[in-house]
Amino acid sequence: MLRKIYDAALVDSPAYENLRTLTTRFPGRLAGTPAYHGAEAWAEDVLKQLGCDRTELQQTLVPHWERGATESVRLVRPGGASAALSAVALGGSVPTPAGGLTAPVVELHSLEELTTADVKGKIVFFNGAMNPRYITPGLAYGESGRQRNQGPAAAAKHGAVGVLVRSLTHRLDDVPHTGATTYLPDVPRIPAAALSTVAADALSAALKAEHSLQVAMQIHSSWHDDWPAANVIGELRGSESPEKVILVGGHLDCWDIAPGAHDDGAGVVQSIDVLRILKAVGYTPKHTVRCVLFANEENGLRGATKYAEVAGEKKEVHLLALETDGGGYAARGFNIGNAAGDAHLKAARFKPLFEPYGVFIFQAGRGGADVGPLMAKGNTVAGLIPEAQRYFDIHHTREDSIDKVNPRELELGAAAMAALVYLVDQHGL
Amino acid sequence: MLRKIYDAALVDSPAYENLRTLTTRFPGRLAGTPAYHGAEAWAEDVLKQLGCDRTELQQTLVPHWERGATESVRLVRPGGASAALSAVALGGSVPTPAGGLTAPVVELHSLEELTTADVKGKIVFFNGAMNPRYITPGLAYGESGRQRNQGPAAAAKHGAVGVLVRSLTHRLDDVPHTGATTYLPDVPRIPAAALSTVAADALSAALKAEHSLQVAMQIHSSWHDDWPAANVIGELRGSESPEKVILVGGHLDCWDIAPGAHDDGAGVVQSIDVLRILKAVGYTPKHTVRCVLFANEENGLRGATKYAEVAGEKKEVHLLALETDGGGYAARGFNIGNAAGDAHLKAARFKPLFEPYGVFIFQAGRGGADVGPLMAKGNTVAGLIPEAQRYFDIHHTREDSIDKVNPRELELGAAAMAALVYLVDQHGL
Repeated sequence: MLRKIYDAALVDSPAYENLRTLTTRFPGRLAGTPAYHGAEAWAEDVLKQLGCDRTELQQTLVPHWERGATESVRLVRPGGASAALSAVALGGSVPTPAGGLTAPVVELHSLEELTTADVKGKIVFFNGAMNPRYITPGLAYGESGRQRNQGPAAAAKHGAVGVLVRSLTHRLDDVPHTGATTYLPDVPRIPAAALSTVAADALSAALKAEHSLQVAMQIHSSWHDDWPAANVIGELRGSESPEKVILVGGHLDCWDIAPGAHDDGAGVVQSIDVLRILKAVGYTPKHTVRCVLFANEENGLRGATKYAEVAGEKKEVHLLALETDGGGYAARGFNIGNAAGDAHLKAARFKPLFEPYGVFIFQAGRGGADVGPLMAKGNTVAGLIPEAQRYFDIHHTREDSIDKVNPRELELGAAAMAALVYLVDQHGL
Repeated sequence: MLRKIYDAALVDSPAYENLRTLTTRFPGRLAGTPAYHGAEAWAEDVLKQLGCDRTELQQTLVPHWERGATESVRLVRPGGASAALSAVALGGSVPTPAGGLTAPVVELHSLEELTTADVKGKIVFFNGAMNPRYITPGLAYGESGRQRNQGPAAAAKHGAVGVLVRSLTHRLDDVPHTGATTYLPDVPRIPAAALSTVAADALSAALKAEHSLQVAMQIHSSWHDDWPAANVIGELRGSESPEKVILVGGHLDCWDIAPGAHDDGAGVVQSIDVLRILKAVGYTPKHTVRCVLFANEENGLRGATKYAEVAGEKKEVHLLALETDGGGYAARGFNIGNAAGDAHLKAARFKPLFEPYGVFIFQAGRGGADVGPLMAKGNTVAGLIPEAQRYFDIHHTREDSIDKVNPRELELGAAAMAALVYLVDQHGL
């Protein structure tokens, strides 16, 4: 059956063309935007066309932040000459004051340095780089991500007036990477932007070589009341125990500056394709197999929260909630988690079935951001683990486009997920 | 020690910049060409600079074939209107007669169909596609590769006057893939070219829809007497048993139309980097660790043959001859072979050491084209197995450029090979 699943995934798959449609018709589909609503309608239609028994747009409210006019970060020399630094505002950043923000810069390499550095009235430049020694780039991303997530709030506590962060990538190029930052209540909200690694190196070198430098930031963002967005749901009703659910999903939203091919358009089309594959091989699941395309993973997680809330109210049991949010790269394995901490061991009995397909990893984990709330409610969760080395090269940037996705790798990810869904439907976890 | 090896591979590695130099200064370095000789000198210098105890240019003679002026394949309609078909002559193809070759076309899907089709006086168009059902693209490549390797000779036996083959790739695009063809003695040599998959589909559609179509081929290639090329060798002399060798290598040549980044520039720079890594971690090998950059893998294998010949004359024992010729993608494992057929089982005891680094596969194999002659002489051989899905997208084309290579994946391949070399040096196989 796995061979049939892989055949259906690899021969005449619509996944790559679906991804092309998603990323070329609905790029920059931040949750709640018109582009996002267009993607909702498109995705629900694809699910209907493939023969779902039921589809739904599960409505919720999501944060409404707008980037506004193109931001600008410039290095300003005494005498007024200035040079552009390739930058992008962090998601959720407040705008700079009218006329912009110009201030001296102090370079730090960790949040801890805030306690000893003189940052009052200055722009703090967190220039920590992702550690290349980690084999798994996600670990380096999580470690260095603190400067983006927490840096602006932490710096504001010490009197800083603005923050710049080095983009979270291993590559040295001039493409800035956005991402969310989390402000704290009772702490001033200061504007924050990410510099490309090239711009970060340039600023660092200038700070070492020259005196009396300032940086001029202009961010034109705005915050508004929450606005609506929906999780897109499509399911194949189970023939024996339809009240029990096997979920497969990704997040439909992406950053406003990105086409969102790997993050997470690949996850969207792969999740849809799992249902198509099961139908193509003529398999009628015993339990309900449900595709959920979550809203607002990037800047709020409201879709995942809403889904888990509703599932909890209905006392809905998920045999497995499997998400894919690591890109459309070649499938290497799965992380699997449950409260008892033994789900990955139970899943490991499927290992021999997957090895001919190049899938070897069955490790403990927490699934991912979107299925996290379901794990907290006692369900077993999982996340596809794709080959990870290229992901952060394009993560949260304009470069996350379909040309970075390989059709076969995309198809193999869908196949691996369909295979796991099938096995859990047959044998449980 | 593996951690130290990986650190040395991942922090401040020169591998990617070496690859940039190799592919931008010496693209199209078919064995024997001036570009190839430039690459020889550059590579030997890099090996000297990293501190090899001995370097050598091991001379041999290689076939001398020249592509000549840009080839042309055109679809010709009754009345004379014609349309270009994106094409590239196969490596070693004879030229078309003066004025070109224009003839009717018959489309086949396998060599076997030659026995029943009417091909006399015609151009045979082998339009077999790589089978997407194979998980490992190399298997599909080997299967469909017969039409390129053997098609022209087989078609000539049946009276065909020329051959077109569909490019060996899963992608649908307009980039033609070259590669060697093998003519037979006592059989006429007919001109042969590969069409891009887009051109192949277009020709196939035209043949179904229209009548009296012909194809006009112009190939301006020429054959000459063999000319010299060298294997580039650099070694770290073993401290205890220097007469025993652990070889690590790739092939220095690449097709004339290609920059040769993945095939096999990656293998070249990774093999050099293995020696650099061992020195960087302060490891003095017990046995001689020798980097061999083979000449002429693409169209003759004369370098590999010469190396094995010399090694045989010297009665040189290779504890392991490890090559990398699958691209600079993320390392998944190794194929390992010996006469007894148990080498991969012996190597599998190293598996637990590699798993934290994402390397899982230890399977039986024959190493690769360049170390094959050494296996025939009783040595243990191995080949790095990188993630394979993207390789044939750019294989043997102008698109095999450095932008297709990810620095971390390249570095991880070098690390994996350095780790295996270290373990075999310490523990044998």
